[in-house]
Amino acid sequence: MNIRYGVIGTGALGGYYGGMLAKNGNDIHFLFNSDYKEAKENGLKVDSINGNFHIENTNAYKDAKDMPTCDVIFVCLKTTNNHLLKDLLPPILHENSIVILIQNGLGNEEELEKEFPNIQLAGSLAFICSAKAGPAHIKHMDLGKLIIAPYKIQTPEVLEQVCKDFLESGVPCNLSDDLKLSRWQKLVWNIAYNGLAVALNTETDKIMKNPSTRQLAFDLMQEVVEGANACGVLLQKEFAHRMIKTTDAMEPYAPSMKLDFDYKRPMEIQYIYSNPIAEAEKAGYKMRKVSMLEQQLRFIQDQYK
Amino acid sequence: MNIRYGVIGTGALGGYYGGMLAKNGNDIHFLFNSDYKEAKENGLKVDSINGNFHIENTNAYKDAKDMPTCDVIFVCLKTTNNHLLKDLLPPILHENSIVILIQNGLGNEEELEKEFPNIQLAGSLAFICSAKAGPAHIKHMDLGKLIIAPYKIQTPEVLEQVCKDFLESGVPCNLSDDLKLSRWQKLVWNIAYNGLAVALNTETDKIMKNPSTRQLAFDLMQEVVEGANACGVLLQKEFAHRMIKTTDAMEPYAPSMKLDFDYKRPMEIQYIYSNPIAEAEKAGYKMRKVSMLEQQLRFIQDQYK
Repeated sequence: MNIRYGVIGTGALGGYYGGMLAKNGNDIHFLFNSDYKEAKENGLKVDSINGNFHIENTNAYKDAKDMPTCDVIFVCLKTTNNHLLKDLLPPILHENSIVILIQNGLGNEEELEKEFPNIQLAGSLAFICSAKAGPAHIKHMDLGKLIIAPYKIQTPEVLEQVCKDFLESGVPCNLSDDLKLSRWQKLVWNIAYNGLAVALNTETDKIMKNPSTRQLAFDLMQEVVEGANACGVLLQKEFAHRMIKTTDAMEPYAPSMKLDFDYKRPMEIQYIYSNPIAEAEKAGYKMRKVSMLEQQLRFIQDQYK
Repeated sequence: MNIRYGVIGTGALGGYYGGMLAKNGNDIHFLFNSDYKEAKENGLKVDSINGNFHIENTNAYKDAKDMPTCDVIFVCLKTTNNHLLKDLLPPILHENSIVILIQNGLGNEEELEKEFPNIQLAGSLAFICSAKAGPAHIKHMDLGKLIIAPYKIQTPEVLEQVCKDFLESGVPCNLSDDLKLSRWQKLVWNIAYNGLAVALNTETDKIMKNPSTRQLAFDLMQEVVEGANACGVLLQKEFAHRMIKTTDAMEPYAPSMKLDFDYKRPMEIQYIYSNPIAEAEKAGYKMRKVSMLEQQLRFIQDQYK
């Protein structure tokens, strides 16, 4: 089965994962925004800890209407841009297309389903440290694993093929059959470190070095674990400890929300904070410190000039 | 009864309240630190919303050893300097001296009592917006009331005279018979606005204007009220609402901890945050958002260069 892939939002995630598939010869089409000209003229460049590479002839588009319809579409936009999907998706959908949201947060698929009630949908979590180094130029700094989980899928064999294509392209990839669990798992780290890095204007290593914020990161992660449990998601208490160890082992890192803050771009507060807080509260659990972090982030974003 | 007063720490509080007593002809002796030379040469200046004044011949000292013993000693140091008291107090104490700690926080008298088990002690809370405008120069911007409450007092008539002296000098002053209640009451505002102003690098009006931080300020104050209640201190739930109204009516204000932060001076985290958190927790109540603010403040202070 030869899958035709599409990437909506070719940045730190879409550029890296799509680039890896392209490098291995897959048929893949990239929607760019501001980087279109650079990508069209000089292709997509990826500097990766596993070796740099360059896709000289990138199938680059600046308008979704010029793209072919695709079998599998990776949505790699920030969730703050999800309102664009109602215009970006239709031109590249055929009746069996699968849309995979490689995004952080909670409620992403539910939201999109409201707009497109008939499409096949999956969610995906990227465990990766990557960032844009320049126009159509991605820097991959650490990790890289992808977890893909069906949300509403009629052709599971296609998801299996996606996973296989990734593995053959050098991307560690797992299928999960529990999207909610995967999303909450990812939230444990994201909720703690994204928000703290912004609120304290710092990076992971400094958070871990100071005993007060090291404890605070753990407190936040524990609240997320308890929030997940309240929602019937069986995250182990041990998971927060594991994330502390993972972060200790990481290079100093500015999470994506910190970069958004630095460049005064909208932050993914709604999907990463407000949605999980609301879902846990509906289930009877108040994530108090998490909610304080959300309140601070809303203030901080409001101060953007 | 003519009281001889001493002021240890002549800054925004000591300079204002001591200055008011001096202006009215009271016998009062001021210990200065860096402002000594200016105070000795040109006296103490106060710019007050109630009228500016100038104490040309200020009894200014740079060393407590040069001061006379005093009947009533106002300690107006930041709590971060309380370790100095073991050297500053003895030269000016006589056997009936009363030490009044005009300071924020909790546990102040208990700490000092360990060092001086035999002295008379009272606590005082200043409801005032004031700051140093320059050397030996105080700016009084709003409010001004003083509440004084005995901690361990054998001569209550002296405290009554202090209160009378203040009233005659134009300082609204009340005696309270419940120091713990007074300290917790003051903490309600202090815990919310001092820490938020530092953590968010802002002032009261911006905190109140943004709906998320307006709610957060209220959440923090409500936790303090519940913390006080857990400790057997009968603060009304309504009190947090009242403080919201008070703050709405205030001019935009940078609380003292924000000024400490701006000038990279140590912040009063221990007495304003850690002590109340510990006391509430001992009584079985966790102030979760307050404790998060403490954790952030400890991080922020740790980043001072």
